[in-house]
Amino acid sequence: MNNNELSSETLAGLDAYWRASNYLAVGQIYLRANPLLKEPLQSEHIKRVLLGHWGTTPGQNFIYTHLNRIIKKHDLNMFYISGPGHGGPAMVAQTYLEGTYSEIYPEISQDEKGMTKLFKQFSFPGGIPSHVSPECPGSMHEGGELGYSLSHAFGAVFDNPGLIVSCVVGDGEAETGPLATAWHSNKFLNPITDGVVLPILHLNGYKIANPAVLARIPEEELKDLFKGYGWKPYLLSGDEPSTMHHQMANVLDQVMADINEIKEQAQNGNITRPCWPMIILRTPKGWTGPKVVDGLQVEGSFRAHQVPLSDPAHSPEHLAALEKWLLSYKPNELFDENGRLLPELAALAPVNERRMGANPHTNGGILLKNLHIPDFREYAIDIQQKGITGQGDTLILSSFIRDVIKLNMESRNFRLFGPDETLSNKLNAVFEVTNRQWNALKEENDDFLANDGRVMEMLSEHQCEGWLEGYLLTGRHGLFNCYEAFIHIIDSMFNQHAKWLKVTAGLPWRRKLASLNILLASHVWRQDHNGFTHQDPGFIDHVINKKASVVRVYLPPDANCLLSVMDHCLRSRHYVNVVIAGKHPSPQWLSIDEATIHCTKGIGIWPWASSDAGQEPDLVMACAGDVPTLEILAAVEILKKHIPELKIRVVNVVDLMKLQPESEHPHGLNDEEFDSLFTSNKPVIFSFHAYPWLIHRLTYRRTNHHNIHVRGYKEEGTITTPFDMTVLNETDRFNLVMDALKRLPQLGNKSAYLKQEMEDQLIKHKLYIREHGIDMPEIRDWKWGTDLFK
Amino acid sequence: MNNNELSSETLAGLDAYWRASNYLAVGQIYLRANPLLKEPLQSEHIKRVLLGHWGTTPGQNFIYTHLNRIIKKHDLNMFYISGPGHGGPAMVAQTYLEGTYSEIYPEISQDEKGMTKLFKQFSFPGGIPSHVSPECPGSMHEGGELGYSLSHAFGAVFDNPGLIVSCVVGDGEAETGPLATAWHSNKFLNPITDGVVLPILHLNGYKIANPAVLARIPEEELKDLFKGYGWKPYLLSGDEPSTMHHQMANVLDQVMADINEIKEQAQNGNITRPCWPMIILRTPKGWTGPKVVDGLQVEGSFRAHQVPLSDPAHSPEHLAALEKWLLSYKPNELFDENGRLLPELAALAPVNERRMGANPHTNGGILLKNLHIPDFREYAIDIQQKGITGQGDTLILSSFIRDVIKLNMESRNFRLFGPDETLSNKLNAVFEVTNRQWNALKEENDDFLANDGRVMEMLSEHQCEGWLEGYLLTGRHGLFNCYEAFIHIIDSMFNQHAKWLKVTAGLPWRRKLASLNILLASHVWRQDHNGFTHQDPGFIDHVINKKASVVRVYLPPDANCLLSVMDHCLRSRHYVNVVIAGKHPSPQWLSIDEATIHCTKGIGIWPWASSDAGQEPDLVMACAGDVPTLEILAAVEILKKHIPELKIRVVNVVDLMKLQPESEHPHGLNDEEFDSLFTSNKPVIFSFHAYPWLIHRLTYRRTNHHNIHVRGYKEEGTITTPFDMTVLNETDRFNLVMDALKRLPQLGNKSAYLKQEMEDQLIKHKLYIREHGIDMPEIRDWKWGTDLFK
Repeated sequence: MNNNELSSETLAGLDAYWRASNYLAVGQIYLRANPLLKEPLQSEHIKRVLLGHWGTTPGQNFIYTHLNRIIKKHDLNMFYISGPGHGGPAMVAQTYLEGTYSEIYPEISQDEKGMTKLFKQFSFPGGIPSHVSPECPGSMHEGGELGYSLSHAFGAVFDNPGLIVSCVVGDGEAETGPLATAWHSNKFLNPITDGVVLPILHLNGYKIANPAVLARIPEEELKDLFKGYGWKPYLLSGDEPSTMHHQMANVLDQVMADINEIKEQAQNGNITRPCWPMIILRTPKGWTGPKVVDGLQVEGSFRAHQVPLSDPAHSPEHLAALEKWLLSYKPNELFDENGRLLPELAALAPVNERRMGANPHTNGGILLKNLHIPDFREYAIDIQQKGITGQGDTLILSSFIRDVIKLNMESRNFRLFGPDETLSNKLNAVFEVTNRQWNALKEENDDFLANDGRVMEMLSEHQCEGWLEGYLLTGRHGLFNCYEAFIHIIDSMFNQHAKWLKVTAGLPWRRKLASLNILLASHVWRQDHNGFTHQDPGFIDHVINKKASVVRVYLPPDANCLLSVMDHCLRSRHYVNVVIAGKHPSPQWLSIDEATIHCTKGIGIWPWASSDAGQEPDLVMACAGDVPTLEILAAVEILKKHIPELKIRVVNVVDLMKLQPESEHPHGLNDEEFDSLFTSNKPVIFSFHAYPWLIHRLTYRRTNHHNIHVRGYKEEGTITTPFDMTVLNETDRFNLVMDALKRLPQLGNKSAYLKQEMEDQLIKHKLYIREHGIDMPEIRDWKWGTDLFK
Repeated sequence: MNNNELSSETLAGLDAYWRASNYLAVGQIYLRANPLLKEPLQSEHIKRVLLGHWGTTPGQNFIYTHLNRIIKKHDLNMFYISGPGHGGPAMVAQTYLEGTYSEIYPEISQDEKGMTKLFKQFSFPGGIPSHVSPECPGSMHEGGELGYSLSHAFGAVFDNPGLIVSCVVGDGEAETGPLATAWHSNKFLNPITDGVVLPILHLNGYKIANPAVLARIPEEELKDLFKGYGWKPYLLSGDEPSTMHHQMANVLDQVMADINEIKEQAQNGNITRPCWPMIILRTPKGWTGPKVVDGLQVEGSFRAHQVPLSDPAHSPEHLAALEKWLLSYKPNELFDENGRLLPELAALAPVNERRMGANPHTNGGILLKNLHIPDFREYAIDIQQKGITGQGDTLILSSFIRDVIKLNMESRNFRLFGPDETLSNKLNAVFEVTNRQWNALKEENDDFLANDGRVMEMLSEHQCEGWLEGYLLTGRHGLFNCYEAFIHIIDSMFNQHAKWLKVTAGLPWRRKLASLNILLASHVWRQDHNGFTHQDPGFIDHVINKKASVVRVYLPPDANCLLSVMDHCLRSRHYVNVVIAGKHPSPQWLSIDEATIHCTKGIGIWPWASSDAGQEPDLVMACAGDVPTLEILAAVEILKKHIPELKIRVVNVVDLMKLQPESEHPHGLNDEEFDSLFTSNKPVIFSFHAYPWLIHRLTYRRTNHHNIHVRGYKEEGTITTPFDMTVLNETDRFNLVMDALKRLPQLGNKSAYLKQEMEDQLIKHKLYIREHGIDMPEIRDWKWGTDLFK
């Protein structure tokens, strides 16, 4: 059907449905009783606190209503992302009208009683938030923090060729950096194997208190901008409902024609990057709301952002205006006297899973399938001797990841994400079986680029994280690899995802998702040529502020441990797993069997490195992280060599959360277990990958805490050699020996001699690098420094 | 002069200067001896470790060389920002050629000996990093983390009408979110009162291992994109040097004509947003470097990113290729036999402060003038009674900020930044004297928008932070106001700025900057209507990982304290000051004199709230933050009322760093001072604004640490009432009383009775909010709960 022929009946239906949703939205913001206005509106019907965001709501209701039409018309598999975030009342109203809300929350029934509860619960203690929060069916994007809607939308459609995600981008959100670059996601979409994102830029002109930039540039610039981003923009603009219904229906029909044409062309082998359609919808902020309040313009201005009539409970004018506003939607033409949407209107919504609130992709755990994971033991390196040099831990891992990709190639439910660092992080082997998905222009000398590939790389940590989140939220698996220092770029995105996981874990109808796995290679200790700007191990501090039930941090000391840890992470559900590993060739310690046992425990004594022979030690040398493990072990070798009678215990920590009390984290050791490792009164020298005080934060309640002396990165670094980085931060073997000696007064003279030797070694090192610019060649043997002085 | 008439002499000069800079760049990457190739190149002349990024370098040298011409021609006040970050060798080479490098580092003299040192120090232990780091003259932007060059450039030109910042944006950096939105900064620039940013998008086609998106879209899209962003793009593209010199000179002349035209029009009263010129320069990655190495294309491919010839020390082919490459620049035509640039070439550089490496704006401390700051005491509120309700602490502050703006209106060296939250954060009074600077379209109903204003608002925390950093780095003052939860968006930007401050503080020739002041209003405890997504007080944890010498955190408990703290922050130098304050009406405690003394000390006993009468107390009740202070004081009131014999001491912390040992932070109390406040053995109940474990991290070395029991935000929250937020996190008065009772076993039966009362109060509260959706009306009295049960 051509829209110009859109029947007046269809138009009237669209308008009525829209009015119903707007009515329900205003009701949510204002009413605690009298939901159908069966009696004249009174002060006591008004909520005591008015919270909510009206401004974006009617526009979103308009869009949702029109999408319903097109879904029914084409039997589309579509869902809705609400970028503007605060438009909670719209999506709640819409999912209530289509029935999904009441199916999940039967007490919010489709009748007067249910409507009363629907209204009351909104922004009410014990009720629901004002955003499109996890509690809202059909939502996989909360939008409390702005900027990620479009990245989530693209993540959702990767490998979902039958899916269309309609993504409403607010003109406020459009100013954020992450959103501004997300438009380029179209260069990474495959028209055959992926689905479609239909962005709808909603220009309502204002943010909280300011106009929006994109609403205040000439239309020509606006069009150029989106053409420049590679989209085909459809503009529509106005405030007269019937005209707007006509226009919107028209545009959506055109958009669907474009999409079908592109899909068809692609099926016919045209894999040139298509110019996907997008919509720019300009409607007044607070459309259909009060035009003027207290003498000031509201509709079409920033004053419509939250609650347009501020005090109807006490101002008779406001009360009258509210009643007039509510009645302007003609509720009696929309709901029967029991408060149920009239059947001819209800029939306008799609049915079953075609309802956007019931689309299973928005509750991805329903669709989640286990990954096919090969036996990680088969990728192990043979540890003929403790301390043999490996090839780089992430390089070993990459063969395992390669085969995860291979085994799930058909199910198309695993992707690897990274900001142009997959090779730099040495995950090289993945390119033996797949490529980077890339649909912009290609040139002759490009490596590993293809229209279809399992690796997603764009130089934007925001995009990588946002795509992966969208991919996971719709029921798939993935891994994000990133330089350690720059993972802070997505600190706030991690926050929001961790919050989503916490809240959804408490909603019985939400199913668990695959974990968000973050691999931090290229870490703080090996930024030899990038220097100080590339050194920040603080993401762990940030992560563990979030609920213990959803966060996990792993520091595998070698390649076999990394394999075991990654196997666990890929199988886990509903966590954020942070794994920190090195990419440079470095000493290897555990056989795959030892590694498996060690990583399963998460923490343990390394007897082969210790000299306490299972007895109470004189000294505990503990470590977490690959470089700290190396230096601790080397320090222990020096001590064993020169003070053979000293009973030293080596403890290695893989699962950092083991250190916390069991009351604080499900992985936490109980005090007995902790004391059995760290003793109750012996000195502990702990060398840690990240900022040292974190270990104190985790262990301050432990019996022996006052004896724990921690070394770690203390914000000292520059361009220098790998070993010098440890010296600058006093985490090198020589300083660690001196730390131990300081805490072993019983050693007397021996101690003074050894201390002097250590200082001499440090001077020797400094002189050497100043001259040669590299570490001493002896460093190739992990025990170097043990025998140098005799 | 029209460029078409550019003399062959001029052209030859440009090319020679460019070759000289390229020669010096290659030398930095490869050579440790034989800098002038006076003898045939040998293995021993090659550095042992080859680190550096050649790819972007020749293009940047090309740009810098051409900018020199235009500077001289027009006597421009211009400096250079290197967005691509890793192009360190270019800017070092250029500043060495123009003489600024040797002026600052006399040992790097302009002769063979100096050149040897110049080469050796690059990416060498004890030398200089591979970025355009603080050590490099003319740099105010390091670029180790990509994304902020353009925001810094705009920050630099605000209020610098005579300044032009040429900002090279790499095509990799251009993919980041912050950069993608920074192009819109042109809507915030005033053509009369601000300077000019000349962006030069450098398309060299590749990132580390991938092509760059903007280099792989059709030219039409590329042009549309920048026209859409509101710029006038000039494209030039090629690899033949002489053609490119012609083109570039032409374009720069045209650009200067455009800029002059715009400036003139603006002077004549045309304040319509101009369409500023920008340049898109497409040159091969690794231009002029080896074309093919080991059979693979290098020039013009991603393989040119770092070191094109990987092993000239051991591969004779590589060595020969390196020699050929170096000789291709014809060094004997550029340098005399002492290694000094030939005088006719040296004459091509600007002189004195016109040299971009010597532009004083790049060492902003030189230009920094003290702010005119009114007496903050004059904005104080009168505390007739402890606990009277204020108007909102930030609202009081806003009058002070208003007058800071007023007093510095003429010097134009203070701005207020925020992502559309200045009004939401209640800094309303500033709009009595100024407006938001806005140069996009305006409409009738806009509030507080003007072409010239001291408030900068764009819905991008990245932009606000980046603009402010640029503003500070060029010697001005400012304040960033932001929602607490969303300041995490700029975690990584804060990291880089803090690192910049640390490094520059150690460079004697760098002058100190005004502090970066961040005001976090709209904090975790008062997100009643935004809920869980808006609750995150973890920025403090992030901040204090950085060097103690540059970070400060303040938690003023009321408006008068906030005034005193802000006065201090605005006067301070070279710190990042984080101030957390409330915006809602809340109880006020200290007179302005008390507040001044208290904030100057940073921590102290509040005798009027305590009942220990200066003696050793039975219990310490400590607090940091406005909401914690209220609840601790209320808890103390309850305890005093019901157990009058209990000796309670109230300690309030404003300056969080006071808690750390003095060895860890310059503000830290020594142990005696700490013990004199917190006792050495009495229970301490500490209620903290943020995550509770941070207090343990700060105090774990203190004598009485094991008795400190901390409450804080533990990631529990949703849409609920202000008081209920404290209940959810057990930081409310009733829970605090119970916490205290648990640690006072000596109270016996009294304790049990009071505990029961506390639990009853909590139930009463829960029932009330469930019914009414608001807190009990009694809450208006800060002591509520004290007398309710008798």
